[in-house]
Amino acid sequence: MSFNTFGKIFRFTTWGESHGSAIGCVVDGCPPNISISEAEIQKDMNMRRPGQSKFTTQRKESDKVNILSGVFNGKSTGTPISLIIYNEDKRSRDYESIKNKFRPGHADFTYLKKYGIRDFRGGGRQSARETASRVAAGAIAKIVLKKILGKKFSVIGAVTQLGLMSCDKLNWNNNEIRKNPFFCPDKKSVKLWEKYLLAVRKSGSSCGAIIELRVTGIPVGLGAPIYSKLDTDIAAALMSINAVKGVNIGAGMNAAFLSGEENSDEMISKSGKLNFKSNNAGGILGGISTGQNIIASFAVKPTSSILNKRKTIDKKGKNTSISVKGRHDPCVGIRAVPIGEAMLSCVLLDHFLMNRAQCG
Amino acid sequence: MSFNTFGKIFRFTTWGESHGSAIGCVVDGCPPNISISEAEIQKDMNMRRPGQSKFTTQRKESDKVNILSGVFNGKSTGTPISLIIYNEDKRSRDYESIKNKFRPGHADFTYLKKYGIRDFRGGGRQSARETASRVAAGAIAKIVLKKILGKKFSVIGAVTQLGLMSCDKLNWNNNEIRKNPFFCPDKKSVKLWEKYLLAVRKSGSSCGAIIELRVTGIPVGLGAPIYSKLDTDIAAALMSINAVKGVNIGAGMNAAFLSGEENSDEMISKSGKLNFKSNNAGGILGGISTGQNIIASFAVKPTSSILNKRKTIDKKGKNTSISVKGRHDPCVGIRAVPIGEAMLSCVLLDHFLMNRAQCG
Amino acid sequence: MSFNTFGKIFRFTTWGESHGSAIGCVVDGCPPNISISEAEIQKDMNMRRPGQSKFTTQRKESDKVNILSGVFNGKSTGTPISLIIYNEDKRSRDYESIKNKFRPGHADFTYLKKYGIRDFRGGGRQSARETASRVAAGAIAKIVLKKILGKKFSVIGAVTQLGLMSCDKLNWNNNEIRKNPFFCPDKKSVKLWEKYLLAVRKSGSSCGAIIELRVTGIPVGLGAPIYSKLDTDIAAALMSINAVKGVNIGAGMNAAFLSGEENSDEMISKSGKLNFKSNNAGGILGGISTGQNIIASFAVKPTSSILNKRKTIDKKGKNTSISVKGRHDPCVGIRAVPIGEAMLSCVLLDHFLMNRAQCG
Amino acid sequence: MSFNTFGKIFRFTTWGESHGSAIGCVVDGCPPNISISEAEIQKDMNMRRPGQSKFTTQRKESDKVNILSGVFNGKSTGTPISLIIYNEDKRSRDYESIKNKFRPGHADFTYLKKYGIRDFRGGGRQSARETASRVAAGAIAKIVLKKILGKKFSVIGAVTQLGLMSCDKLNWNNNEIRKNPFFCPDKKSVKLWEKYLLAVRKSGSSCGAIIELRVTGIPVGLGAPIYSKLDTDIAAALMSINAVKGVNIGAGMNAAFLSGEENSDEMISKSGKLNFKSNNAGGILGGISTGQNIIASFAVKPTSSILNKRKTIDKKGKNTSISVKGRHDPCVGIRAVPIGEAMLSCVLLDHFLMNRAQCG
Repeated sequence: MSFNTFGKIFRFTTWGESHGSAIGCVVDGCPPNISISEAEIQKDMNMRRPGQSKFTTQRKESDKVNILSGVFNGKSTGTPISLIIYNEDKRSRDYESIKNKFRPGHADFTYLKKYGIRDFRGGGRQSARETASRVAAGAIAKIVLKKILGKKFSVIGAVTQLGLMSCDKLNWNNNEIRKNPFFCPDKKSVKLWEKYLLAVRKSGSSCGAIIELRVTGIPVGLGAPIYSKLDTDIAAALMSINAVKGVNIGAGMNAAFLSGEENSDEMISKSGKLNFKSNNAGGILGGISTGQNIIASFAVKPTSSILNKRKTIDKKGKNTSISVKGRHDPCVGIRAVPIGEAMLSCVLLDHFLMNRAQCG
Repeated sequence: MSFNTFGKIFRFTTWGESHGSAIGCVVDGCPPNISISEAEIQKDMNMRRPGQSKFTTQRKESDKVNILSGVFNGKSTGTPISLIIYNEDKRSRDYESIKNKFRPGHADFTYLKKYGIRDFRGGGRQSARETASRVAAGAIAKIVLKKILGKKFSVIGAVTQLGLMSCDKLNWNNNEIRKNPFFCPDKKSVKLWEKYLLAVRKSGSSCGAIIELRVTGIPVGLGAPIYSKLDTDIAAALMSINAVKGVNIGAGMNAAFLSGEENSDEMISKSGKLNFKSNNAGGILGGISTGQNIIASFAVKPTSSILNKRKTIDKKGKNTSISVKGRHDPCVGIRAVPIGEAMLSCVLLDHFLMNRAQCG
Repeated sequence: MSFNTFGKIFRFTTWGESHGSAIGCVVDGCPPNISISEAEIQKDMNMRRPGQSKFTTQRKESDKVNILSGVFNGKSTGTPISLIIYNEDKRSRDYESIKNKFRPGHADFTYLKKYGIRDFRGGGRQSARETASRVAAGAIAKIVLKKILGKKFSVIGAVTQLGLMSCDKLNWNNNEIRKNPFFCPDKKSVKLWEKYLLAVRKSGSSCGAIIELRVTGIPVGLGAPIYSKLDTDIAAALMSINAVKGVNIGAGMNAAFLSGEENSDEMISKSGKLNFKSNNAGGILGGISTGQNIIASFAVKPTSSILNKRKTIDKKGKNTSISVKGRHDPCVGIRAVPIGEAMLSCVLLDHFLMNRAQCG
Repeated sequence: MSFNTFGKIFRFTTWGESHGSAIGCVVDGCPPNISISEAEIQKDMNMRRPGQSKFTTQRKESDKVNILSGVFNGKSTGTPISLIIYNEDKRSRDYESIKNKFRPGHADFTYLKKYGIRDFRGGGRQSARETASRVAAGAIAKIVLKKILGKKFSVIGAVTQLGLMSCDKLNWNNNEIRKNPFFCPDKKSVKLWEKYLLAVRKSGSSCGAIIELRVTGIPVGLGAPIYSKLDTDIAAALMSINAVKGVNIGAGMNAAFLSGEENSDEMISKSGKLNFKSNNAGGILGGISTGQNIIASFAVKPTSSILNKRKTIDKKGKNTSISVKGRHDPCVGIRAVPIGEAMLSCVLLDHFLMNRAQCG
């Protein structure tokens, strides 16, 4: 049982609050003798960190990651890797005005009721700032997977729906994703999305998003029945991300609308190599990877901290209203892309190690 | 780490294959001194068991549950409750013809590749027969929750989408759900659904479904950040059910399309009592219950065992085709209703106990 | 967290009470494709089962083990192996006379205080009858270890101290151990022990024992710092056996009396092969196996159920006395030998799989 | 599964190497709203820290603990408490001379064989420096237990055997323990021990120790059958401490030599209050606390780093010898006292929370 730990063999435990002195995580179970550097981890950190475009919060955090243990002469030793990220741009006074009110859509109310105490500064532990630690752990998972699985392994996420704006997934181009501030995979949608999001922000509102993750190079056989299915653990991993309300594997919720023929991916042998005619299963059957690409997607609800006034109550139970100023992303879903990649990578490495344990 | 165990404090471990002598589960961590009887558990078993209408498999199983341990003089003793259900109607010869072929959409291929061996009779361990054990464990969870939370606690599931047929959720009536063979909550849809499903079956195909679960009487404060969020564990619980491909909490995937104002549920105090104006959060904020109803839904893919011929390969990698005869549900989603209720009940009891552990 | 489950990757969950209809266990995480038969498991069961000599309880149990799942065509499938052993010789009336009294040295008092209810028949869940399940799980662990490690692997336990009677460990002979009713490794001690134990029984008393376990064929590298040390898990495994009060690894408690020179096992290379000059470490340094034999021992307290009258209280808190008739072993430590072997085997297999997971 | 995490509900994860920049731990599952300060934790840190007398290593570490998260306005918030201790006095050059040799009795050999890499500086992760983190976690456990159980709760450890020198346990005086550099509970033994240990050191050797732990104020009912017995978890906790080779509960290994009458602690009611006539069980029956004092003891082997020359091999397998200079404790057992207290406190709090979960 573990409130703040994720994973079974490759495990990480995160700690820290939005406006504490630092946040961090401890990664346990990493295989030994893998080259790991702060610079390599930092690349992923930089994808998530705030203040990089006008579409994300203006909080300035360099999100510089420091390795405190577990790496010796540039290589993992098999012992816990402790990572720390100092908080730099804490403006706790921003929160004084709302410390006695519950922001609708936030966990202010539930944390206080559960624990009888809460660190209200920037949401404390409930803040998405915690996800920086996940990205760091995920970066290590990616490094290990690349070492073990080779070049065919890759994981990439993209925003495929920005509020009411969709994109054309047929135009999906991995090379475009990092080139625009939305992680949009369809170059043609970027301009429209920019206009749209500026309008959303100007209106004092916010919007949600759908993120799709695609993984190549996963061998057949990862996953385990019944309660450690690969898709079970992916669902948990993605649903644990702040503001996520839905998770799909392959066809996902849409599988309900398909016929048996459409849905079941036919198998064909071509010159001795197995091909699937489709991938509605998202690369997972019976909880075990098929060798196809792993496909998962998840929905992030619109940012709850908005300028537009909302009805709420205060700590004493009195009716009041709230308009959240501060420095907030108009669409938190955008920055969920590297977090989704990180969580998925951790699940995949964990299952690789689990499979190695039982099946050799 | 546990392949076949679910839960943290209230835990159950299932075992057994579709065509072995029996299946069963061991429930650990059940609070002591709770009245538990085979009869009470059987009620839930009867909701799931096959052969009850023309719309489910004609395999005849009484699914009679036997308590082997952990209950003394009609009360739980706090020690493990072992439950066994004997398999009665095993026609393993049905599977001889397909033992060397991989059924598309099934786990035949992945099990064999992973383990190098598989019990092909009725899908062996990968069969949905395993879910009978979950329903038994879930029945115990419900009994305990009712004892602890009192009459205000209830959990009910319904099919809200049957393939291409929806129902009007505004007509949701708990009393109708058990009265029709589809667990449909809208009386007006039943006739149409019946016609539709007969047509689907006649065509040799199958269809998917969406199941919605609603829980009342859950107090505020259950759940735990960050990786044991209530919704994280619900997502894992539901995704672990056979053939499930998507999970939503509250607004779910649709949250992506809402504005910040629409999505964040406003809070209003009325004569000293808190009311939420909506429940897009599905009763969970920051992974912790708000005291509202818990709402979750999940999609079940269409039955993969269909009469219509599908391309596939055999164990030797040769191209072939398959037409699955046997005795299969045209929509496995229907029988997923009691399974969803069971899994959700287990998660809720588990979190109740976890919260009691940390917060007293 | 798991009250009735042991192990991390190779895990077993036991259930059942002394006088219920059956006891059993579910073994999860067993590698696939290993030949496993009831006959092979039964050999170990027969070492532990009661009624085999005049020095053990006269309760007649055949302890016949049945495999209910997880084995297909004689081979493990990688799915849970469910084992059941029916209770045959239940004389619950024996316990009627003591159901309202707490037997000193037994868990009668603590179970009732903890749970508010207890199955008093034969000690219910607290009975050593539970250990039959462990022996079954351990038999599977041994089979797997033999398959993986080959013939050099062996595990054997012996009673080295029977109450006040010691034996000469220099005369340790593996072939003698199974030939006498005490699992005594020193042929010369058997006669004396027989006399001694008969006298103990005649006097209406009981005695304790020390059991030593020796394992060959374990490679260097099993175990894991810091809280999953091999010796940590062995200590937990052995201390979890009923009536065990002390555990030693290698020199054990006596290590306190050695000098630094005596204690630290010197290493010498001989024709390219490493030799240790001694084995005070019991084959474990820093929680990791050295490649030497694993040596562990544990003390079992004297049987608490004795004929001689003891002071105690009843359920209402009134002073009374008790003389336990029933059918009890004069020294429960004797039958702890196969249980110790079983638990140690499970730990070693578990660590083998853990090491394979992290280190490949 | 967790290599570097201890506990089930109250859990801590430690990280860090002897000569890295820092060590630390993350404590998860701490109940909320408990007053926790660095100053209070520091008191326990100061009991363990090196350089305090001529009988411990002269490495100078202030062992100043810093709280990085989980405490807000002086109170625990229920979220992870991250603790960091910076390493100050690292003289890694001390280890250059021995980096290619395996010190007998140390984990140098096993770590390198297991992981293929090791941080040789000061033993890296295998160093007892890791135990500083345990003491910090244990200090928090003590604070919580005092808050929950009140003043009757206390935990104290003492050295009762220093190499060949025993003390008279009848003279045990809690107030003396902290007044001498040996944590000796018997004032009369201090002088003799001082002489003895100086002689041991002068001779270039080292000695072992036995530590006894005594806990008051634990209510009846903590612990859980079968594999989470209170004594099982205590055995694991104490055996996980560096250099520990044996663990006793109550009479421990000596239970083997007692008769059934001597061993089973009689129960007597006196003016409505239960009294046990003895405490051979160490306050635990059937894995569950009886309400008596909890008594556990453990043996620490003599320091393996000694000046006297020992035979060993180097990394290439060649025979050589080693004489360890550096700054080492002549008896590491002395500093194990606060570590034992810490580990035992963590187990007890964990079981308190577990019991609260299941039994309310």
